[in-house]
Amino acid sequence: MRTVDVAARAAKRTALMDAAARCFAERGYSATRTADICSGAGMSSGNLFHYFPTKHDVLLALVERDGEQTSEAMTDLAQAGDPLAALLSLLDEICGLAGDPVYSGLALEISAVAHRDEEVAARFKANDLTFRCGLATLVERAGDAGQLSTDLTPEHAATWLAALVDGMFARVAADPDFDPSAQAPILRRIVTQLLVGGTE
Amino acid sequence: MRTVDVAARAAKRTALMDAAARCFAERGYSATRTADICSGAGMSSGNLFHYFPTKHDVLLALVERDGEQTSEAMTDLAQAGDPLAALLSLLDEICGLAGDPVYSGLALEISAVAHRDEEVAARFKANDLTFRCGLATLVERAGDAGQLSTDLTPEHAATWLAALVDGMFARVAADPDFDPSAQAPILRRIVTQLLVGGTE
Repeated sequence: MRTVDVAARAAKRTALMDAAARCFAERGYSATRTADICSGAGMSSGNLFHYFPTKHDVLLALVERDGEQTSEAMTDLAQAGDPLAALLSLLDEICGLAGDPVYSGLALEISAVAHRDEEVAARFKANDLTFRCGLATLVERAGDAGQLSTDLTPEHAATWLAALVDGMFARVAADPDFDPSAQAPILRRIVTQLLVGGTE
Repeated sequence: MRTVDVAARAAKRTALMDAAARCFAERGYSATRTADICSGAGMSSGNLFHYFPTKHDVLLALVERDGEQTSEAMTDLAQAGDPLAALLSLLDEICGLAGDPVYSGLALEISAVAHRDEEVAARFKANDLTFRCGLATLVERAGDAGQLSTDLTPEHAATWLAALVDGMFARVAADPDFDPSAQAPILRRIVTQLLVGGTE
């Protein structure tokens, strides 16, 4: 296969995944037909099967891509010169993502499907573990750098940071007035108090 | 209808709702057949339709019952002599509920179905508003009693208390090692720091 074909194929695969993300976020995984995904990617119906055997494989590819992006982001952050600042910036960035209807809609849909689908659940849990390990590493490095004042272990701190992030996505779903970007300073404050606010 | 018939009918309705809650929590709403609900309630198949027109009506009744229980609990708490202690006890109690597989499984299933079902979503959002209003009332009363030191509005505080509760349920789903009861003291600490930990 020529390089140009490989690149074109990869681009079409990405276009299908992006279209599927929009469909799953808007109308849900079950209600999305493969024809909707093709049409959203500007391809003729049935084209999906040259790239993914089933709709389920597109969903798995999306969960996997999310895991890869999380893993890359957490690996980059682990090198940050100022680990506490890096952690707080990451949370600001996640507030921005939570405000994106496609990102938050897909995240909620994946967790809903994971509730019923073992294969999706396994990858979803693996991604969650990657995220929490990355958070724990940042917390540990911040502690080593003398930036923290807490008696929480890095793992417990990471668990509650992840709970706050999950909680923010749940707020987007439950409360039409919740604006994640506007709430970013409050999240920063809660996390600062948790990690630097002192030992009891 | 004689009083005894009315009571027997109400008891059977409750038994069906409890059985449905277990089924929905364990295998999910879609995968549950009405025959499963009847058999879980010790009734013969088809009996459900004497009490609920459809499986969907059982789900709506469960969401409604949750709303009524939330409303009663928040109304009781609003009278508490020590509003901050009442708030922290409520969170301890919710940690206990999150550790109950039927309660947390049903809560996660309802939020998953709400993601796709407008009628469930409307009642789910109404329950959430009841919960947040109750929390905001407690925070406001604690503030009036001089128990707090925060510049968060009662509504913002209630939003993040709700986010922490949502986040805890999400942790139960994502992390097999997360034990809500064991985490209750950390939740208490986060909330205490948020509300009493001082103004920036």
